[in-house]
Amino acid sequence: MSQAHSYLINGSFNQAISPFDRGFAYGDGVFRTLKMINGQPQHWPQHYQKLVADCAAISIVCPSADLLISDLAQLFKPVETAVAKIIITRGEGERGYAAPAVTMPLRAVIKSNLPQYPETNYTNGVELLICETRLNAQPKLAGIKHLNRLENVLARMEWNNEAIFDGLMLDAKDNVIECTMGNIFAQFGDILITPDLSECGVAGITRQQIINHAAPLNKTIKPAQLSLSQLVKAEEVIVCNSLYGAFQVSKIGTNIFLPGNLAKKIRELLAHD
Amino acid sequence: MSQAHSYLINGSFNQAISPFDRGFAYGDGVFRTLKMINGQPQHWPQHYQKLVADCAAISIVCPSADLLISDLAQLFKPVETAVAKIIITRGEGERGYAAPAVTMPLRAVIKSNLPQYPETNYTNGVELLICETRLNAQPKLAGIKHLNRLENVLARMEWNNEAIFDGLMLDAKDNVIECTMGNIFAQFGDILITPDLSECGVAGITRQQIINHAAPLNKTIKPAQLSLSQLVKAEEVIVCNSLYGAFQVSKIGTNIFLPGNLAKKIRELLAHD
Repeated sequence: MSQAHSYLINGSFNQAISPFDRGFAYGDGVFRTLKMINGQPQHWPQHYQKLVADCAAISIVCPSADLLISDLAQLFKPVETAVAKIIITRGEGERGYAAPAVTMPLRAVIKSNLPQYPETNYTNGVELLICETRLNAQPKLAGIKHLNRLENVLARMEWNNEAIFDGLMLDAKDNVIECTMGNIFAQFGDILITPDLSECGVAGITRQQIINHAAPLNKTIKPAQLSLSQLVKAEEVIVCNSLYGAFQVSKIGTNIFLPGNLAKKIRELLAHD
Repeated sequence: MSQAHSYLINGSFNQAISPFDRGFAYGDGVFRTLKMINGQPQHWPQHYQKLVADCAAISIVCPSADLLISDLAQLFKPVETAVAKIIITRGEGERGYAAPAVTMPLRAVIKSNLPQYPETNYTNGVELLICETRLNAQPKLAGIKHLNRLENVLARMEWNNEAIFDGLMLDAKDNVIECTMGNIFAQFGDILITPDLSECGVAGITRQQIINHAAPLNKTIKPAQLSLSQLVKAEEVIVCNSLYGAFQVSKIGTNIFLPGNLAKKIRELLAHD
Protein backbone atom coordinates (compact mmCIF):
# COMPACT_ATOMS: atom_id res chain seq x y z
CA MET A 1 0.00 0.00 0.00
CA SER A 2 1.70 3.25 1.00
CA GLN A 3 5.29 2.73 -0.11
CA ALA A 4 8.05 5.34 -0.10
CA HIS A 5 7.86 7.50 -3.21
CA SER A 6 4.62 6.11 -4.49
CA TYR A 7 2.92 9.49 -4.18
CA LEU A 8 3.36 13.23 -4.00
CA ILE A 9 1.11 15.61 -2.11
CA ASN A 10 1.28 19.21 -3.34
CA GLY A 11 4.57 18.38 -5.00
CA SER A 12 6.25 16.93 -1.89
CA PHE A 13 7.19 13.40 -0.97
CA ASN A 14 6.43 12.09 2.53
CA GLN A 15 3.51 14.39 3.05
CA ALA A 16 0.06 13.15 3.93
CA ILE A 17 -3.52 14.37 3.93
CA SER A 18 -4.85 16.52 6.74
CA PRO A 19 -8.10 15.33 8.32
CA PHE A 20 -9.31 18.89 7.63
CA ASP A 21 -8.94 18.32 3.90
CA ARG A 22 -12.38 18.59 2.34
CA GLY A 23 -11.64 15.68 0.03
CA PHE A 24 -11.44 13.48 3.11
CA ALA A 25 -14.31 15.18 4.96
CA TYR A 26 -16.86 15.37 2.13
CA GLY A 27 -15.39 13.86 -1.03
CA ASP A 28 -15.09 17.50 -2.14
CA GLY A 29 -12.82 17.00 -5.13
CA VAL A 30 -12.26 15.25 -8.45
CA PHE A 31 -9.79 12.76 -9.91
CA ARG A 32 -8.24 11.25 -13.03
CA THR A 33 -6.68 7.88 -13.69
CA LEU A 34 -4.25 7.78 -16.59
CA LYS A 35 -1.62 5.62 -18.19
CA MET A 36 2.04 6.62 -18.05
CA ILE A 37 4.00 5.23 -20.99
CA ASN A 38 7.78 5.58 -20.70
CA GLY A 39 7.26 8.26 -18.08
CA GLN A 40 4.84 10.25 -20.25
CA PRO A 41 1.12 10.70 -19.55
CA GLN A 42 -0.94 9.27 -22.39
CA HIS A 43 -3.61 11.60 -23.82
CA TRP A 44 -2.51 14.36 -21.44
CA PRO A 45 -4.29 17.29 -23.17
CA GLN A 46 -7.62 15.44 -22.91
CA HIS A 47 -7.02 14.44 -19.29
CA TYR A 48 -5.99 17.91 -18.23
CA GLN A 49 -8.88 19.56 -20.05
CA LYS A 50 -11.32 17.20 -18.31
CA LEU A 51 -9.65 17.81 -14.93
CA VAL A 52 -10.07 21.57 -15.37
CA ALA A 53 -13.71 21.16 -16.45
CA ASP A 54 -14.54 18.83 -13.55
CA CYS A 55 -12.90 21.19 -11.05
CA ALA A 56 -14.79 24.14 -12.53
CA ALA A 57 -18.09 22.26 -12.27
CA ILE A 58 -17.74 22.28 -8.48
CA SER A 59 -15.95 25.67 -8.32
CA ILE A 60 -12.43 24.42 -7.61
CA VAL A 61 -9.55 26.18 -9.34
CA CYS A 62 -7.50 23.42 -10.93
CA PRO A 63 -3.72 23.56 -10.40
CA SER A 64 -1.77 24.46 -13.54
CA ALA A 65 -0.75 21.82 -16.05
CA ASP A 66 2.89 22.77 -15.42
CA LEU A 67 2.61 21.87 -11.74
CA LEU A 68 1.00 18.52 -12.50
CA ILE A 69 3.48 17.69 -15.26
CA SER A 70 6.29 18.52 -12.87
CA ASP A 71 4.74 16.21 -10.25
CA LEU A 72 4.48 13.40 -12.80
CA ALA A 73 8.11 13.93 -13.82
CA GLN A 74 9.22 13.70 -10.18
CA LEU A 75 7.20 10.56 -9.47
CA PHE A 76 7.72 8.51 -12.64
CA LYS A 77 11.05 7.48 -14.11
CA PRO A 78 11.52 8.21 -17.84
CA VAL A 79 11.36 4.49 -18.62
CA GLU A 80 8.39 3.74 -16.41
CA THR A 81 5.04 2.43 -17.67
CA ALA A 82 2.47 2.55 -14.88
CA VAL A 83 -0.74 4.17 -13.67
CA ALA A 84 -0.99 7.75 -12.41
CA LYS A 85 -3.95 8.85 -10.35
CA ILE A 86 -4.37 12.60 -9.86
CA ILE A 87 -6.68 13.81 -7.12
CA ILE A 88 -7.59 17.49 -6.73
CA THR A 89 -9.57 18.56 -3.66
CA ARG A 90 -10.87 21.93 -2.54
CA GLY A 91 -8.20 21.82 0.19
CA GLU A 92 -8.51 22.35 3.92
CA GLY A 93 -11.48 23.89 5.65
CA GLU A 94 -12.98 24.22 9.07
CA ARG A 95 -15.84 22.02 10.23
CA GLY A 96 -19.04 22.59 8.23
CA TYR A 97 -20.01 22.53 4.57
CA ALA A 98 -19.24 26.19 3.91
CA ALA A 99 -15.89 26.46 2.15
CA PRO A 100 -13.44 29.12 3.37
CA ALA A 101 -13.48 32.35 1.35
CA VAL A 102 -9.97 31.50 0.17
CA THR A 103 -9.08 27.86 -0.40
CA MET A 104 -5.82 26.27 -1.47
CA PRO A 105 -6.68 23.23 -3.58
CA LEU A 106 -4.74 20.07 -2.75
CA ARG A 107 -3.18 17.91 -5.44
CA ALA A 108 -2.19 14.30 -4.86
CA VAL A 109 -0.42 12.28 -7.54
CA ILE A 110 -0.26 8.55 -6.88
CA LYS A 111 1.66 5.86 -8.74
CA SER A 112 0.53 2.27 -9.06
CA ASN A 113 1.30 -0.71 -11.25
CA LEU A 114 -0.41 -1.09 -14.58
CA PRO A 115 -2.99 -3.89 -14.26
CA GLN A 116 -2.05 -7.03 -16.20
CA TYR A 117 -5.10 -7.97 -18.28
CA PRO A 118 -5.52 -11.62 -19.36
CA GLU A 119 -4.82 -12.17 -23.07
CA THR A 120 -8.37 -13.52 -23.43
CA ASN A 121 -9.75 -10.04 -22.64
CA TYR A 122 -8.31 -9.00 -26.02
CA THR A 123 -9.24 -12.12 -27.95
CA ASN A 124 -12.52 -13.34 -26.42
CA GLY A 125 -13.81 -10.28 -24.61
CA VAL A 126 -14.94 -9.74 -21.05
CA GLU A 127 -17.92 -10.59 -18.88
CA LEU A 128 -20.08 -8.02 -17.07
CA LEU A 129 -22.27 -8.49 -14.04
CA ILE A 130 -25.52 -6.49 -13.97
CA CYS A 131 -25.23 -4.65 -10.65
CA GLU A 132 -28.15 -4.23 -8.29
CA THR A 133 -26.73 -0.93 -7.06
CA ARG A 134 -28.16 1.85 -9.18
CA LEU A 135 -26.62 5.18 -10.09
CA ASN A 136 -28.84 7.97 -8.86
CA ALA A 137 -29.77 10.96 -10.96
CA GLN A 138 -27.98 14.18 -10.00
CA PRO A 139 -27.69 16.53 -12.97
CA LYS A 140 -25.39 18.90 -11.05
CA LEU A 141 -22.76 16.16 -10.71
CA ALA A 142 -23.45 14.05 -13.80
CA GLY A 143 -20.42 13.41 -15.99
CA ILE A 144 -17.95 14.62 -13.35
CA LYS A 145 -15.33 12.21 -12.01
CA HIS A 146 -15.74 13.46 -8.44
CA LEU A 147 -14.73 11.84 -5.18
CA ASN A 148 -18.25 10.82 -4.09
CA ARG A 149 -17.95 7.24 -5.27
CA LEU A 150 -19.87 5.17 -2.72
CA GLU A 151 -22.22 3.86 -5.40
CA ASN A 152 -19.28 2.41 -7.31
CA VAL A 153 -17.88 0.96 -4.07
CA LEU A 154 -21.22 -0.72 -3.27
CA ALA A 155 -21.55 -1.99 -6.84
CA ARG A 156 -18.02 -3.43 -6.76
CA MET A 157 -18.91 -5.34 -3.57
CA GLU A 158 -21.50 -7.30 -5.52
CA TRP A 159 -19.00 -9.77 -6.97
CA ASN A 160 -15.92 -11.60 -5.89
CA ASN A 161 -15.48 -13.80 -8.93
CA GLU A 162 -12.48 -13.28 -11.16
CA ALA A 163 -14.49 -14.25 -14.23
CA ILE A 164 -16.36 -10.95 -13.92
CA PHE A 165 -14.39 -8.07 -15.44
CA ASP A 166 -16.67 -5.21 -14.43
CA GLY A 167 -20.17 -4.42 -13.25
CA LEU A 168 -22.79 -2.81 -15.48
CA MET A 169 -24.62 0.00 -13.70
CA LEU A 170 -28.13 1.15 -14.48
CA ASP A 171 -30.04 4.18 -13.26
CA ALA A 172 -33.29 3.93 -11.30
CA LYS A 173 -35.27 3.78 -14.58
CA ASP A 174 -33.36 0.73 -15.95
CA ASN A 175 -31.29 2.82 -18.33
CA VAL A 176 -27.77 1.55 -18.88
CA ILE A 177 -25.26 4.19 -17.77
CA GLU A 178 -21.75 2.77 -17.51
CA CYS A 179 -19.56 0.18 -15.81
CA THR A 180 -17.99 0.80 -12.40
CA MET A 181 -14.67 1.60 -14.10
CA GLY A 182 -15.45 2.39 -17.71
CA ASN A 183 -17.93 3.62 -20.29
CA ILE A 184 -19.88 1.55 -22.76
CA PHE A 185 -20.79 1.55 -26.47
CA ALA A 186 -23.32 -0.71 -28.20
CA GLN A 187 -23.49 -1.38 -31.95
CA PHE A 188 -26.83 -1.62 -33.77
CA GLY A 189 -26.16 -1.85 -37.50
CA ASP A 190 -24.33 1.32 -38.50
CA ILE A 191 -25.22 3.12 -35.28
CA LEU A 192 -23.03 3.11 -32.19
CA ILE A 193 -24.91 4.17 -29.07
CA THR A 194 -23.22 5.30 -25.87
CA PRO A 195 -25.46 6.06 -22.89
CA ASP A 196 -26.50 9.64 -22.32
CA LEU A 197 -24.79 10.90 -19.15
CA SER A 198 -26.77 14.05 -18.47
CA GLU A 199 -28.33 12.64 -15.27
CA CYS A 200 -25.57 10.45 -13.86
CA GLY A 201 -22.36 8.60 -14.71
CA VAL A 202 -18.81 9.68 -15.49
CA ALA A 203 -18.02 10.99 -18.97
CA GLY A 204 -14.59 9.42 -19.47
CA ILE A 205 -12.03 10.79 -21.88
CA THR A 206 -11.75 7.48 -23.75
CA ARG A 207 -15.50 7.64 -24.43
CA GLN A 208 -15.02 11.19 -25.70
CA GLN A 209 -12.09 10.19 -27.91
CA ILE A 210 -14.13 7.41 -29.45
CA ILE A 211 -16.92 9.93 -30.15
CA ASN A 212 -14.44 12.43 -31.64
CA HIS A 213 -12.39 10.06 -33.77
CA ALA A 214 -14.88 7.47 -34.90
CA ALA A 215 -14.82 8.35 -38.60
CA PRO A 216 -12.81 5.25 -39.64
CA LEU A 217 -15.47 3.05 -38.03
CA ASN A 218 -18.09 4.27 -40.54
CA LYS A 219 -20.71 4.40 -37.81
CA THR A 220 -22.99 7.15 -36.59
CA ILE A 221 -22.15 7.71 -32.95
CA LYS A 222 -25.09 8.70 -30.79
CA PRO A 223 -25.16 9.47 -27.08
CA ALA A 224 -28.70 8.36 -26.20
CA GLN A 225 -30.88 6.69 -23.61
CA LEU A 226 -30.27 2.95 -23.76
CA SER A 227 -32.32 0.47 -21.75
CA LEU A 228 -30.92 -2.84 -20.55
CA SER A 229 -33.39 -4.71 -22.75
CA GLN A 230 -32.08 -2.76 -25.78
CA LEU A 231 -28.44 -3.24 -24.82
CA VAL A 232 -28.62 -7.02 -24.75
CA LYS A 233 -29.94 -6.95 -28.33
CA ALA A 234 -26.83 -5.11 -29.60
CA GLU A 235 -24.62 -6.89 -32.14
CA GLU A 236 -21.50 -5.86 -30.27
CA VAL A 237 -20.88 -4.13 -26.96
CA ILE A 238 -17.59 -2.64 -25.85
CA VAL A 239 -16.34 -1.18 -22.58
CA CYS A 240 -13.58 1.42 -22.49
CA ASN A 241 -11.33 3.39 -20.17
CA SER A 242 -7.93 5.08 -20.11
CA LEU A 243 -6.01 2.03 -18.92
CA TYR A 244 -7.17 -0.83 -21.14
CA GLY A 245 -8.54 1.19 -24.06
CA ALA A 246 -11.45 -0.99 -25.20
CA PHE A 247 -12.57 -4.58 -24.67
CA GLN A 248 -15.32 -6.47 -26.42
CA VAL A 249 -18.07 -7.67 -24.08
CA SER A 250 -18.74 -11.41 -24.40
CA LYS A 251 -21.40 -11.75 -21.72
CA ILE A 252 -23.74 -9.48 -19.74
CA GLY A 253 -25.51 -11.42 -17.02
CA THR A 254 -26.78 -14.47 -18.93
CA ASN A 255 -26.72 -12.75 -22.34
CA ILE A 256 -23.97 -13.95 -24.64
CA PHE A 257 -22.49 -11.86 -27.46
CA LEU A 258 -20.80 -13.33 -30.50
CA PRO A 259 -17.17 -12.38 -31.13
CA GLY A 260 -16.69 -9.23 -33.22
CA ASN A 261 -13.95 -6.84 -34.20
CA LEU A 262 -15.27 -3.52 -32.85
CA ALA A 263 -13.04 -3.44 -29.77
CA LYS A 264 -9.95 -4.17 -31.84
CA LYS A 265 -10.80 -1.38 -34.29
CA ILE A 266 -11.39 1.03 -31.41
CA ARG A 267 -8.09 0.09 -29.75
CA GLU A 268 -6.38 0.93 -33.04
CA LEU A 269 -8.16 4.30 -33.22
CA LEU A 270 -7.14 5.13 -29.67
CA ALA A 271 -3.52 4.16 -30.26
CA HIS A 272 -3.22 6.76 -32.99
CA ASP A 273 -4.62 9.61 -30.94
CA MET B 1 -7.05 24.97 10.75
CA SER B 2 -4.81 22.01 11.61
CA GLN B 3 -3.49 22.92 15.05
CA ALA B 4 -1.44 20.72 17.34
CA HIS B 5 -3.66 18.38 19.31
CA SER B 6 -6.86 19.24 17.54
CA TYR B 7 -7.24 15.69 16.26
CA LEU B 8 -6.33 12.06 16.72
CA ILE B 9 -5.95 9.51 13.93
CA ASN B 10 -6.30 5.90 15.08
CA GLY B 11 -5.64 7.07 18.62
CA SER B 12 -2.39 8.93 17.82
CA PHE B 13 -1.58 12.61 17.75
CA ASN B 14 0.45 14.03 14.87
CA GLN B 15 -0.65 11.38 12.41
CA ALA B 16 -2.32 12.18 9.14
CA ILE B 17 -4.40 10.49 6.47
CA SER B 18 -2.78 8.37 3.79
CA PRO B 19 -3.78 9.22 0.20
CA PHE B 20 -4.55 5.48 -0.05
CA ASP B 21 -7.28 5.85 2.56
CA ARG B 22 -10.59 5.02 0.93
CA GLY B 23 -12.28 7.84 2.82
CA PHE B 24 -10.10 10.26 0.85
CA ALA B 25 -10.26 8.30 -2.43
CA TYR B 26 -13.99 7.58 -2.56
CA GLY B 27 -15.70 9.06 0.50
CA ASP B 28 -15.86 5.44 1.65
CA GLY B 29 -16.82 6.03 5.27
CA VAL B 30 -19.24 7.64 7.71
CA PHE B 31 -19.16 10.35 10.37
CA ARG B 32 -20.80 11.86 13.43
CA THR B 33 -20.79 15.37 14.85
CA LEU B 34 -21.49 15.59 18.55
CA LYS B 35 -21.37 17.99 21.44
CA MET B 36 -18.84 17.51 24.23
CA ILE B 37 -20.07 18.97 27.52
CA ASN B 38 -17.43 19.16 30.26
CA GLY B 39 -15.38 16.61 28.38
CA GLN B 40 -18.28 14.16 28.01
CA PRO B 41 -20.00 13.25 24.73
CA GLN B 42 -23.67 14.20 24.89
CA HIS B 43 -26.13 11.44 23.91
CA TRP B 44 -23.23 9.03 23.40
CA PRO B 45 -25.25 5.77 23.34
CA GLN B 46 -27.39 7.15 20.50
CA HIS B 47 -24.39 8.47 18.57
CA TYR B 48 -22.45 5.24 18.92
CA GLN B 49 -25.44 3.09 17.97
CA LYS B 50 -25.95 5.20 14.83
CA LEU B 51 -22.24 5.06 13.99
CA VAL B 52 -22.32 1.25 14.20
CA ALA B 53 -25.48 1.09 12.08
CA ASP B 54 -24.10 3.47 9.43
CA CYS B 55 -20.83 1.53 9.26
CA ALA B 56 -22.75 -1.75 8.94
CA ALA B 57 -24.87 -0.34 6.12
CA ILE B 58 -21.74 -0.05 3.97
CA SER B 59 -20.03 -3.14 5.47
CA ILE B 60 -17.45 -1.38 7.62
CA VAL B 61 -16.74 -2.85 11.06
CA CYS B 62 -17.05 0.07 13.46
CA PRO B 63 -14.26 0.47 16.04
CA SER B 64 -15.31 -0.35 19.61
CA ALA B 65 -16.97 2.26 21.81
CA ASP B 66 -14.08 1.84 24.26
CA LEU B 67 -11.55 2.94 21.64
CA LEU B 68 -13.59 5.97 20.67
CA ILE B 69 -14.29 6.95 24.29
CA SER B 70 -10.57 6.67 24.97
CA ASP B 71 -9.85 8.92 21.95
CA LEU B 72 -12.35 11.49 23.21
CA ALA B 73 -10.79 11.40 26.69
CA GLN B 74 -7.34 12.01 25.18
CA LEU B 75 -8.48 14.87 22.99
CA PHE B 76 -10.87 16.78 25.27
CA LYS B 77 -10.06 18.16 28.70
CA PRO B 78 -12.52 17.25 31.46
CA VAL B 79 -13.74 20.86 31.60
CA GLU B 80 -14.01 21.34 27.87
CA THR B 81 -17.24 22.09 26.01
CA ALA B 82 -16.69 21.81 22.29
CA VAL B 83 -17.56 19.83 19.14
CA ALA B 84 -16.25 16.35 18.39
CA LYS B 85 -16.38 14.99 14.88
CA ILE B 86 -15.75 11.26 14.49
CA ILE B 87 -14.93 9.93 11.03
CA ILE B 88 -14.70 6.19 10.34
CA THR B 89 -13.43 5.05 6.94
CA ARG B 90 -12.91 1.61 5.43
CA GLY B 91 -9.16 2.25 5.75
CA GLU B 92 -6.43 1.92 3.14
CA GLY B 93 -6.76 0.10 -0.13
CA GLU B 94 -5.02 -0.19 -3.45
CA ARG B 95 -6.23 1.68 -6.54
CA GLY B 96 -9.68 0.51 -7.66
CA TYR B 97 -13.10 0.23 -6.10
CA ALA B 98 -12.64 -3.35 -4.83
CA ALA B 99 -11.87 -3.26 -1.12
CA PRO B 100 -9.03 -5.46 0.16
CA ALA B 101 -10.15 -8.81 1.63
CA VAL B 102 -8.99 -7.55 5.01
CA THR B 103 -9.35 -3.88 5.82
CA MET B 104 -8.35 -1.93 8.91
CA PRO B 105 -10.92 0.85 9.39
CA LEU B 106 -9.50 4.27 10.15
CA ARG B 107 -10.86 6.47 12.91
CA ALA B 108 -10.31 10.21 13.08
CA VAL B 109 -11.53 12.27 16.02
CA ILE B 110 -11.43 16.01 15.48
CA LYS B 111 -12.03 18.82 17.95
CA SER B 112 -13.48 22.19 17.08
CA ASN B 113 -15.09 25.10 18.86
CA LEU B 114 -18.77 25.03 19.63
CA PRO B 115 -20.53 27.49 17.30
CA GLN B 116 -21.87 30.57 19.05
CA TYR B 117 -25.49 30.95 17.98
CA PRO B 118 -27.07 34.42 18.12
CA GLU B 119 -29.56 34.82 20.97
CA THR B 120 -32.24 35.65 18.38
CA ASN B 121 -32.02 32.07 17.05
CA TYR B 122 -33.57 31.02 20.37
CA THR B 123 -36.04 33.85 20.68
CA ASN B 124 -37.11 34.71 17.11
CA GLY B 125 -36.10 31.63 15.17
CA VAL B 126 -34.00 31.17 12.06
CA GLU B 127 -34.33 31.74 8.34
CA LEU B 128 -33.94 29.03 5.69
CA LEU B 129 -33.04 29.38 2.04
CA ILE B 130 -34.75 26.99 -0.36
CA CYS B 131 -31.78 25.40 -2.14
CA GLU B 132 -31.74 24.75 -5.86
CA THR B 133 -29.45 21.76 -5.34
CA ARG B 134 -31.60 18.67 -4.90
CA LEU B 135 -30.87 15.52 -2.93
CA ASN B 136 -30.91 12.54 -5.25
CA ALA B 137 -32.72 9.32 -4.42
CA GLN B 138 -30.43 6.45 -3.46
CA PRO B 139 -32.20 3.97 -1.17
CA LYS B 140 -28.96 2.07 -0.48
CA LEU B 141 -27.42 5.16 1.15
CA ALA B 142 -30.53 6.94 2.46
CA GLY B 143 -30.40 7.85 6.13
CA ILE B 144 -26.65 7.17 6.43
CA LYS B 145 -24.33 9.99 7.43
CA HIS B 146 -21.67 8.94 4.92
CA LEU B 147 -18.74 10.90 3.51
CA ASN B 148 -20.25 11.49 0.03
CA ARG B 149 -21.47 14.99 0.78
CA LEU B 150 -20.98 16.94 -2.44
CA GLU B 151 -24.70 17.73 -2.62
CA ASN B 152 -24.50 19.45 0.76
CA VAL B 153 -21.35 21.28 -0.33
CA LEU B 154 -23.06 22.53 -3.51
CA ALA B 155 -26.17 23.52 -1.57
CA ARG B 156 -24.10 25.43 1.00
CA MET B 157 -22.47 27.39 -1.84
CA GLU B 158 -25.86 28.86 -2.71
CA TRP B 159 -25.73 31.54 -0.05
CA ASN B 160 -23.23 33.86 1.53
CA ASN B 161 -25.58 35.88 3.67
CA GLU B 162 -25.36 35.65 7.42
CA ALA B 163 -29.10 36.14 7.78
CA ILE B 164 -29.58 32.62 6.34
CA PHE B 165 -29.15 29.96 9.02
CA ASP B 166 -29.39 26.88 6.80
CA GLY B 167 -30.57 25.67 3.41
CA LEU B 168 -33.70 23.60 2.92
CA MET B 169 -33.09 20.68 0.58
CA LEU B 170 -35.74 19.01 -1.56
CA ASP B 171 -35.58 15.83 -3.60
CA ALA B 172 -36.15 15.77 -7.36
CA LYS B 173 -39.92 15.42 -6.78
CA ASP B 174 -40.20 18.60 -4.65
CA ASN B 175 -40.45 16.67 -1.40
CA VAL B 176 -38.84 18.39 1.56
CA ILE B 177 -36.05 16.20 2.95
CA GLU B 178 -33.85 18.11 5.39
CA CYS B 179 -31.52 21.05 5.82
CA THR B 180 -27.85 20.89 4.89
CA MET B 181 -26.95 20.44 8.56
CA GLY B 182 -30.09 19.32 10.32
CA ASN B 183 -33.46 17.59 10.16
CA ILE B 184 -36.86 19.21 10.09
CA PHE B 185 -40.29 18.86 11.76
CA ALA B 186 -43.51 20.61 10.78
CA GLN B 187 -46.58 21.02 12.99
CA PHE B 188 -50.10 20.69 11.58
CA GLY B 189 -52.59 20.76 14.48
CA ASP B 190 -51.77 17.81 16.72
CA ILE B 191 -49.61 16.12 14.09
CA LEU B 192 -45.87 16.64 13.80
CA ILE B 193 -44.50 15.53 10.43
CA THR B 194 -40.84 14.86 9.76
CA PRO B 195 -39.85 13.98 6.19
CA ASP B 196 -39.58 10.34 5.25
CA LEU B 197 -35.89 9.54 4.63
CA SER B 198 -36.17 6.19 2.87
CA GLU B 199 -34.91 7.58 -0.44
CA CYS B 200 -32.39 10.22 0.66
CA GLY B 201 -31.29 12.43 3.52
CA VAL B 202 -29.52 11.80 6.81
CA ALA B 203 -31.51 10.39 9.73
CA GLY B 204 -29.95 12.36 12.56
CA ILE B 205 -30.02 11.21 16.16
CA THR B 206 -31.73 14.41 17.35
CA ARG B 207 -34.57 13.68 14.92
CA GLN B 208 -34.75 10.16 16.32
CA GLN B 209 -34.75 11.41 19.90
CA ILE B 210 -37.61 13.78 19.14
CA ILE B 211 -39.53 10.86 17.62
CA ASN B 212 -38.77 8.64 20.62
CA HIS B 213 -39.46 11.10 23.41
CA ALA B 214 -42.24 13.26 22.06
CA ALA B 215 -44.92 12.14 24.53
CA PRO B 216 -44.87 15.42 26.53
CA LEU B 217 -45.61 17.33 23.32
CA ASN B 218 -49.02 15.61 22.99
CA LYS B 219 -48.52 15.30 19.25
CA THR B 220 -48.67 12.35 16.89
CA ILE B 221 -45.26 12.15 15.23
CA LYS B 222 -45.32 10.90 11.67
CA PRO B 223 -42.40 10.38 9.31
CA ALA B 224 -44.09 11.05 5.96
CA GLN B 225 -43.71 12.59 2.54
CA LEU B 226 -43.96 16.34 2.83
CA SER B 227 -44.03 18.65 -0.16
CA LEU B 228 -42.68 22.18 -0.08
CA SER B 229 -46.18 23.55 -0.68
CA GLN B 230 -47.43 21.61 2.38
CA LEU B 231 -44.46 22.65 4.51
CA VAL B 232 -45.05 26.36 4.08
CA LYS B 233 -48.62 25.88 5.39
CA ALA B 234 -47.39 24.42 8.70
CA GLU B 235 -48.19 26.30 11.91
CA GLU B 236 -44.67 25.83 13.17
CA VAL B 237 -41.50 24.42 11.65
CA ILE B 238 -38.38 23.47 13.56
CA VAL B 239 -34.89 22.40 12.52
CA CYS B 240 -32.73 20.22 14.75
CA ASN B 241 -29.28 18.75 15.13
CA SER B 242 -26.87 17.54 17.81
CA LEU B 243 -25.17 20.88 18.31
CA TYR B 244 -27.98 23.41 18.66
CA GLY B 245 -30.80 21.05 19.60
CA ALA B 246 -33.81 22.73 17.97
CA PHE B 247 -34.59 26.16 16.53
CA GLN B 248 -37.91 27.54 15.42
CA VAL B 249 -38.01 28.49 11.73
CA SER B 250 -39.19 32.06 11.18
CA LYS B 251 -38.85 32.22 7.40
CA ILE B 252 -38.49 29.79 4.50
CA GLY B 253 -37.76 31.64 1.27
CA THR B 254 -40.44 34.35 1.31
CA ASN B 255 -42.80 32.45 3.66
CA ILE B 256 -43.00 33.87 7.16
CA PHE B 257 -43.95 31.81 10.22
CA LEU B 258 -45.42 33.30 13.37
CA PRO B 259 -43.50 32.82 16.60
CA GLY B 260 -44.37 29.63 18.53
CA ASN B 261 -43.07 27.56 21.40
CA LEU B 262 -42.42 24.20 19.75
CA ALA B 263 -38.65 24.62 19.50
CA LYS B 264 -38.40 25.64 23.15
CA LYS B 265 -40.43 22.59 24.24
CA ILE B 266 -38.26 20.32 22.11
CA ARG B 267 -35.05 21.79 23.51
CA GLU B 268 -36.40 21.00 26.99
CA LEU B 269 -37.19 17.41 25.96
CA LEU B 270 -33.70 16.96 24.52
CA ALA B 271 -32.01 18.38 27.62
CA HIS B 272 -33.54 15.65 29.77
CA ASP B 273 -32.48 12.77 27.56
